[in-house]
Amino acid sequence: MDKVNLAKKLSLIAERWSPRIVGAVNDFHVKLVKLQGEFVWHSHEAEDELFLVLKGRLRMQYRERVLVVEPGEFIVVPRGVEHCPAADEETHVLLR
Amino acid sequence: MDKVNLAKKLSLIAERWSPRIVGAVNDFHVKLVKLQGEFVWHSHEAEDELFLVLKGRLRMQYRERVLVVEPGEFIVVPRGVEHCPAADEETHVLLR
Repeated sequence: MDKVNLAKKLSLIAERWSPRIVGAVNDFHVKLVKLQGEFVWHSHEAEDELFLVLKGRLRMQYRERVLVVEPGEFIVVPRGVEHCPAADEETHVLLR
Repeated sequence: MDKVNLAKKLSLIAERWSPRIVGAVNDFHVKLVKLQGEFVWHSHEAEDELFLVLKGRLRMQYRERVLVVEPGEFIVVPRGVEHCPAADEETHVLLR
């Protein structure tokens, strides 16, 4: 039941595209990740995925459009929807 | 699949202690709430509860201790654990 400081946890992450679990709520994990560059196109069969941007700028590419997500904003990618996250600068994201 | 801007959503909330649903991930809601003063002692039987502080300062009282949670920090109150949230100044929290 200790508190989690997002900036401290982020300072421990060196690699990009490698989510770290920082908490658990019910049966789901809260994760932090650093992004830069482009990931791969993929979808998740069983789970929606929340991206809350803490720093930088996330370009979430869907097949039919691109959403630019800035600090203090989040998106939820519904299960089954193809997406490809990208970021020009280093971008910090809380995932659920 | 549109993005949600936390500050914009918060600007629409006038009452305190009245969580607003701003998104859904899997079967759970993402909520925003403004707190000031003290709530009541309670616990949730079936669900853990995440508090991510966006602004202000949350004093989460447990029966055996108090945790002060600042912006950029979160806590998870496990199901069944008695707690009483309080805030001296207006405090903005993302709940899950």
